[in-house]
Amino acid sequence: MLHGYLVGEILSTTTFIQPVLATIEKVEARMREQADDRHPDLKVAFKNLLAAGGKRIRPTLVLLTGNMLGADPERLTTLAAAIEMLHTATLVHDDLIDGSLMRRGNETLNAKWTPAATVLTGDFVFARAAKLAAETGSLTVMEEFAETLAILVNGELTQMFDSRGLASRENYYERIYAKTGSLFELSTHGAAIISPVDEKMIERARNFGKNLGTAFQIVDDILDFTGEQATVGKPVGSDLLHGLITLPALYYIENNADDENVKALLAGNYHNTAKMTALIESIRQSDAIELSLNEAKLFANKALQALNGQPKSEERLALEELVKYVTDREV
Amino acid sequence: MLHGYLVGEILSTTTFIQPVLATIEKVEARMREQADDRHPDLKVAFKNLLAAGGKRIRPTLVLLTGNMLGADPERLTTLAAAIEMLHTATLVHDDLIDGSLMRRGNETLNAKWTPAATVLTGDFVFARAAKLAAETGSLTVMEEFAETLAILVNGELTQMFDSRGLASRENYYERIYAKTGSLFELSTHGAAIISPVDEKMIERARNFGKNLGTAFQIVDDILDFTGEQATVGKPVGSDLLHGLITLPALYYIENNADDENVKALLAGNYHNTAKMTALIESIRQSDAIELSLNEAKLFANKALQALNGQPKSEERLALEELVKYVTDREV
Repeated sequence: MLHGYLVGEILSTTTFIQPVLATIEKVEARMREQADDRHPDLKVAFKNLLAAGGKRIRPTLVLLTGNMLGADPERLTTLAAAIEMLHTATLVHDDLIDGSLMRRGNETLNAKWTPAATVLTGDFVFARAAKLAAETGSLTVMEEFAETLAILVNGELTQMFDSRGLASRENYYERIYAKTGSLFELSTHGAAIISPVDEKMIERARNFGKNLGTAFQIVDDILDFTGEQATVGKPVGSDLLHGLITLPALYYIENNADDENVKALLAGNYHNTAKMTALIESIRQSDAIELSLNEAKLFANKALQALNGQPKSEERLALEELVKYVTDREV
Repeated sequence: MLHGYLVGEILSTTTFIQPVLATIEKVEARMREQADDRHPDLKVAFKNLLAAGGKRIRPTLVLLTGNMLGADPERLTTLAAAIEMLHTATLVHDDLIDGSLMRRGNETLNAKWTPAATVLTGDFVFARAAKLAAETGSLTVMEEFAETLAILVNGELTQMFDSRGLASRENYYERIYAKTGSLFELSTHGAAIISPVDEKMIERARNFGKNLGTAFQIVDDILDFTGEQATVGKPVGSDLLHGLITLPALYYIENNADDENVKALLAGNYHNTAKMTALIESIRQSDAIELSLNEAKLFANKALQALNGQPKSEERLALEELVKYVTDREV
């Protein structure tokens, strides 16, 4: 049976998961069985992690893309499980690194376990993700999988060392590619690699995922400003409070160079909570939100264009809906 | 050029590395290039890690086994680099977990970096190890690689939760397989998998590595008692001081059930440093050391038996020497 969280969050707002609903259950089962025969405490931690759920957007993307392109269902399920496990592993280490004790309103593993146990649990999830990736039977998938892991980790390190207080579109786009674009790209690219399609189609699938992931992260960054704490599960403007300058802030900075709080931010004073709280409010009230959303929609449109030429199928329609869902989330 | 540490430590005491000396240089180069084009701080950390060296026993084992069995030299170099990188990654996370600030007398990464940066550096090394494993072009190698990673991590978790103050041979052997046997096994098994040999030979190669790794770890555990702090780089009997009961302690416990300090240990009082220091001295003076060494030699002999039937080659002779080196290290 599907986990309640997933059913509640996705099915109430979207229909794109419908064509793969039964297979998502298989993906969940595939993930759960990865901790069988392991240490009992690890099994419990692992199952809690998986039960905490999330939207399962990446496996949905794998399954819809692969089904559309004619991939073998069994290999596709394995790939979807591998990618969601990789995503889960990075969340475990991210939470440890951020010192965050809550994610999506649930306690993170970090809040319950020692840091050492958390590091190892993350490593274990990586190990099982890699095993599943190998079980897709494609060396190309395996190489792309390992490359994506390296991109994710390098992105985290870059963010840790270089990105605080840095107002740069180049840095921003590198960062969101590493954080989100790369794994969305792996989802659609991987699905195409194990499908009976040519190089050109594989490239289109890759572009679809990469652009969709970029749009997704921009919208996430907008929601960080416009969402309410209760919904998003963290303080409004938390990126800026940590010195991370995202697209809405970039637009606001470009158009309000003489704002005192902008000057404070660019001088590196993002620890000044009073000024940053005022700046966050200014950004919320400004056209930076709409400008950012328009930019997200450009990427969403690029994703849609990559689907051009595909026969109208249930999966293509669902992918189009998924693209719409990404930019139409409650902004 | 080979790193000074390696040349100093290995070449002065052994000759088994000779047939693969030039290739080990290629393996080192292969490892070093894995951080190219990444964040500058990561590059520095990565190169320091590799320069800290170690004995490179695992890549030597890969190369000697694969050369003996006729594997393609390029794939073999890649596999050797993958396995040594996996070993390096586990050391990075282990050091973080143990909170150990020194390893082999060098500062560990952990002592210089924040825990977060250390976690991510370890993840990056895992990522590159996985990429290299995929580049061997063998899905079986890739699956075994991922399985070994899971065994290593599960072993660490088991040790963390279950093994303190536990006097059990079963637990001990599970623990040293997870810690050392599994990666030695992967070295010889992986080399055989990419060689033009049959299943029976692949199985013999696997047994060779597994038994050699077991012997290696038992000797390491003996050296923890008999070595001097200056040589081993940690206090004498440090395993016992952390509540980890290894083979010499197991023999001593079996033969000295009425020793007060044994009773203290089995009652879980391994934090009582005075009693444990006295117990360590008793073990050092007892026949538990020789009994343990004899047990290590049984595994070394099993390893040698797995080489039976192999034509006499430079590589076979070197592997036999490697086995002797493992049990004849300064005990």
